[in-house]
Amino acid sequence: MTRKTLIDSIRKMQSFLCVGLDSDLQRLPKALLDFDDPIFEFNKRIIDATLSHCVAYKPNLAFYESLGERGWIALKKTLDYIPDTHFTIADAKRGDIGNTARMYAKTFFETFNFDAVTIAPYMGRDSVEPFLDFENKWVILLALTSNPGSKDFQFEKGADGQTLYEKVVTSSMTWAGADQLMYVVGATQDAYISDLRKICPDHFFLVPGVGAQGGDLASVYAAGATPDVGLLVNSSRGIIYAGEDEEDPFEKVTSAAAKVHRQMQNLL
Amino acid sequence: MTRKTLIDSIRKMQSFLCVGLDSDLQRLPKALLDFDDPIFEFNKRIIDATLSHCVAYKPNLAFYESLGERGWIALKKTLDYIPDTHFTIADAKRGDIGNTARMYAKTFFETFNFDAVTIAPYMGRDSVEPFLDFENKWVILLALTSNPGSKDFQFEKGADGQTLYEKVVTSSMTWAGADQLMYVVGATQDAYISDLRKICPDHFFLVPGVGAQGGDLASVYAAGATPDVGLLVNSSRGIIYAGEDEEDPFEKVTSAAAKVHRQMQNLL
Repeated sequence: MTRKTLIDSIRKMQSFLCVGLDSDLQRLPKALLDFDDPIFEFNKRIIDATLSHCVAYKPNLAFYESLGERGWIALKKTLDYIPDTHFTIADAKRGDIGNTARMYAKTFFETFNFDAVTIAPYMGRDSVEPFLDFENKWVILLALTSNPGSKDFQFEKGADGQTLYEKVVTSSMTWAGADQLMYVVGATQDAYISDLRKICPDHFFLVPGVGAQGGDLASVYAAGATPDVGLLVNSSRGIIYAGEDEEDPFEKVTSAAAKVHRQMQNLL
Repeated sequence: MTRKTLIDSIRKMQSFLCVGLDSDLQRLPKALLDFDDPIFEFNKRIIDATLSHCVAYKPNLAFYESLGERGWIALKKTLDYIPDTHFTIADAKRGDIGNTARMYAKTFFETFNFDAVTIAPYMGRDSVEPFLDFENKWVILLALTSNPGSKDFQFEKGADGQTLYEKVVTSSMTWAGADQLMYVVGATQDAYISDLRKICPDHFFLVPGVGAQGGDLASVYAAGATPDVGLLVNSSRGIIYAGEDEEDPFEKVTSAAAKVHRQMQNLL
């Protein structure tokens, strides 16, 4: 998907919501467990329930891989089910060298036809470049994550006073433009989002850590929005498990997505 | 596998060779392409041809994932085929937060029963810890990689003069001992291996970048060996494709592995 198509979709839908498909066999409605492929059946219902409220879907690969080949079949069917109107992100956090990176790029962009893949920056430029050879496909590089362990290395300051995550952003901005590269920026501290936005005025940020919980959405928007919106905000468990233990779980899923959607409409 | 069993195996075999199963459908002997599962057939023959010369196998996950579910089936069959005497490493370079890391750990340690998995350190401690909950299973953390891009971030010096890769090692040594944690340390510059060995006297280093090419093995050993050997040296393409375009490819594979094995016997 091109940057223009993504921005047009956000404007048209009045939403920058990404629904995270962290679909866990242990948490599916019991009624789905009798199907041949319960994960796909769940995802299909989640997609149907949220399609008019979001612009993107982000399957977290770990949940599929943990099921072995069954998981990969479910993932493929899920990707084929998501309409072309919606941006798709393989949350894979891969990062490996040239030859291997090319294999990963082939996996996600050709075998599965994802629009984007999340990449860990530790191995540097040549672990990212093979992904940039694919037209209208995206790299979403980890910059500042929202977990406690983000403090272990990402905030390390170099001699020039730049933190590691700032260095990752300033370096990688020379590798690709805002039409191929986004950054993962955790929502836990808005101050860092606005600082990073100064360094990086055009690139989209994929922001995990807000969503159905709601509270922080307005401040994330204030800190990170650009004239082109420039944000995809992800919610996973807050939406897909909103109906857990309910009689009609997917009605609750729709309500949870619609609630975030309304907040986004108000902001846009 | 316990640390003691691994060291005993290295002593008994007089080898610290790890064979990298970067098995690429494009490079298999033509005769294997008629089988239902050419990748598994190739791996089986590679394992038969190298079993008495190595102590470990390291499938590179990218090569399997790029084939979708077929790849995962081939990987599972390969793991089941490798005897318990040999240490198995999922070269996956994963790194994600708590819940997701637990799913990855389950994937590699339970679904596939690998002994070890390679992990990228960028997200910090809570992206590593879930892997440490599994008894006699290992995390192999990326420290200093051998690719050109390693210079982009890994050599960044903090205020204390420590490079990022040194910081990764000194921090993570407080998370787990030498019985659960190893480091990936590229072979391209021996000086860094000996410096890192001073910081980290007991942990095994998994060293890519030497092997059938041969040249550097003695200097890697001189720089990195410990009283417990403390090294696994990986060779992938130099061994598994040694017989490419040959009439009996797997005879050449055995010769290539045996050659490295002889060098190792001389060093031990």
